[in-house]
Amino acid sequence: MTQELPSCALDLPSDSGLTYKDAGVDIDAQTQALARVKARAAATLGSQAGPIGHFGGTYKLPGAGGQILVASADGVGTKLQLAATLGGEAHAQMGRDLVNHCTNDILALGATPLFFLDYFATGKLDGDVMTAVVGGIADACLVNGMALLGGETAEMPGMYGEGDYDVAGFIVGTVTEDRIVDGASIEPGDVVIGLPSGGLQTNGFSLARRIAGLTGDAEHDRSRLWEMLPGSGETIGDALMAGHQSFLPTVKPLLDQGLVRGMAHITGGGLVDNLPRTLPEDCIARIEPGSWEVPPIFDWLVERGNLSMIERYHVFNMGVGFVLVATPANAEIVLAQVPEARRIGRIVERTTSDESAVQGLSC
Amino acid sequence: MTQELPSCALDLPSDSGLTYKDAGVDIDAQTQALARVKARAAATLGSQAGPIGHFGGTYKLPGAGGQILVASADGVGTKLQLAATLGGEAHAQMGRDLVNHCTNDILALGATPLFFLDYFATGKLDGDVMTAVVGGIADACLVNGMALLGGETAEMPGMYGEGDYDVAGFIVGTVTEDRIVDGASIEPGDVVIGLPSGGLQTNGFSLARRIAGLTGDAEHDRSRLWEMLPGSGETIGDALMAGHQSFLPTVKPLLDQGLVRGMAHITGGGLVDNLPRTLPEDCIARIEPGSWEVPPIFDWLVERGNLSMIERYHVFNMGVGFVLVATPANAEIVLAQVPEARRIGRIVERTTSDESAVQGLSC
Repeated sequence: MTQELPSCALDLPSDSGLTYKDAGVDIDAQTQALARVKARAAATLGSQAGPIGHFGGTYKLPGAGGQILVASADGVGTKLQLAATLGGEAHAQMGRDLVNHCTNDILALGATPLFFLDYFATGKLDGDVMTAVVGGIADACLVNGMALLGGETAEMPGMYGEGDYDVAGFIVGTVTEDRIVDGASIEPGDVVIGLPSGGLQTNGFSLARRIAGLTGDAEHDRSRLWEMLPGSGETIGDALMAGHQSFLPTVKPLLDQGLVRGMAHITGGGLVDNLPRTLPEDCIARIEPGSWEVPPIFDWLVERGNLSMIERYHVFNMGVGFVLVATPANAEIVLAQVPEARRIGRIVERTTSDESAVQGLSC
Repeated sequence: MTQELPSCALDLPSDSGLTYKDAGVDIDAQTQALARVKARAAATLGSQAGPIGHFGGTYKLPGAGGQILVASADGVGTKLQLAATLGGEAHAQMGRDLVNHCTNDILALGATPLFFLDYFATGKLDGDVMTAVVGGIADACLVNGMALLGGETAEMPGMYGEGDYDVAGFIVGTVTEDRIVDGASIEPGDVVIGLPSGGLQTNGFSLARRIAGLTGDAEHDRSRLWEMLPGSGETIGDALMAGHQSFLPTVKPLLDQGLVRGMAHITGGGLVDNLPRTLPEDCIARIEPGSWEVPPIFDWLVERGNLSMIERYHVFNMGVGFVLVATPANAEIVLAQVPEARRIGRIVERTTSDESAVQGLSC
């Protein structure tokens, strides 16, 4: 990634410290493997389906008055292992996080949710845990105005460790063709607006757990979750478990007013990988670190893990959960209507094809 | 379960032998836990969504000319662990099995597929395995005429054992309101028709692996997969891995002719649990064991596991992969058009509410 800003808000060297790969997650290997099946997946698309790679897949339903169905599948990653340690309410939180994550994914294309299905898999069914997780899913579906249509519960002895489970969610929403937001109209001069995440949402937990020393089973490791996080009034466990919120209530009114040209849900891959998904080829987002408040948990993780600039913005959302791109005039309206929104950068012209689409986040 | 037939094709005592619960899967516990969240899920349904509990969830899309979206989520269970042992082509088979399973689920309501999304989770990404699985998904989507819209790949260190992965699928299809097949018109005198599964499809593998001695890691256990299955020309591994086929090509022409009143996809819970999902309250399906060919792998599992009648028909499909219910006149047409279809029972009137909805399968 090229870097044009003269200084960074955080100036750790970029070639030292822990990486996501060290923590066992190799995003590049995933990308390479996905590229190998992309052609076979593309062959299935036909004339109704949109291209793969945005936050949701799109499907134009024939005979439905120009309605586009937008669908997404997701999980909550190894945040599940923190939930397993914390127990109780943390399981319901996993259910809510999953629904909100999926809601934000299709929201990034301008879609509102219709329905949701879940997949819950475990080695040995614990009725209380399953009830908490699926109950959390149901509650968040209700809040976001979608039907929980069904799901699958799989008990797979030997596949999951004692007390472990995995949960995945599938969402379908709708948007009319004329209201889909795909970033195509973004142009230089537009403003990049960030909405606060309040925490890690559901990404980067393999690295966060590694940094926090939470990957082992030892009691003294787990006790760290109940230590106070420096610079905050909460425990490390609570800060790590901060809920993945739904941006639907905040963003829907902005969409109804036609104020937004492009959106990005900041999930795995951070600002670096997610923002380009809504940018036209000839545009670059120049981000200004320091223009938004970074929750203390990120400072703690960056310092303890000695994370490079590249790594921290590639793994964590660093406090920005959702991004809106708007014209300067519309950005003023958005910033006035949404007190927690921050101007975090601007769109500039891309002059050469080898420039990185997101700049300002490495030194 | 009550039992009215004077004799059974297989007359092992019903109170001995291995059970699914012994193998670590407690279907009753699952049912109880699900019941606890059912009210919270039902609260989300609104006026567009159909009741929970059929093979797919239904959602009437407003402004779409009476189109009902039908959605389902599923996995392939611990058949995955056999695939991990066998390797190579078995991984692609898992992808195809998943798509076909989901296709059959929505087909049971009369719906044809629109699109599919997958969730692939593993501890440490193996590019070749992931490519094989997702490639199999893409290929089966193409064959079944649906778009693979996207999916999620999750690398979760510590969550899955070396070489293990889980995969879930999510399908959305459509059927017009006037062509939905939900069994409501089924009446006494109708004929129950079975379509052959050819094997276990994707259900009952925790018990099958336990019976086959395949739950350990020992080399002498795994070598059993390459032993010949008595009464067949194939290995035990090949018989267990027999593909979960799509019944769409067979059933779609029958639906187009309006020949079918109700359908059931015989998955987890076997004929005993799945057939009632399409039966009206006042109808019983009286099944005649011996009226269809049971693949040798089931005889081998039943004998080796000393499985009771109740257990075998509750865990395995016993050779019947998909069930159609039709009037006697239409049943003749179906049997003439589909050479592999078998008349496996008939619909009789239910006289008391405590009678079991499926009879003839226990002694």
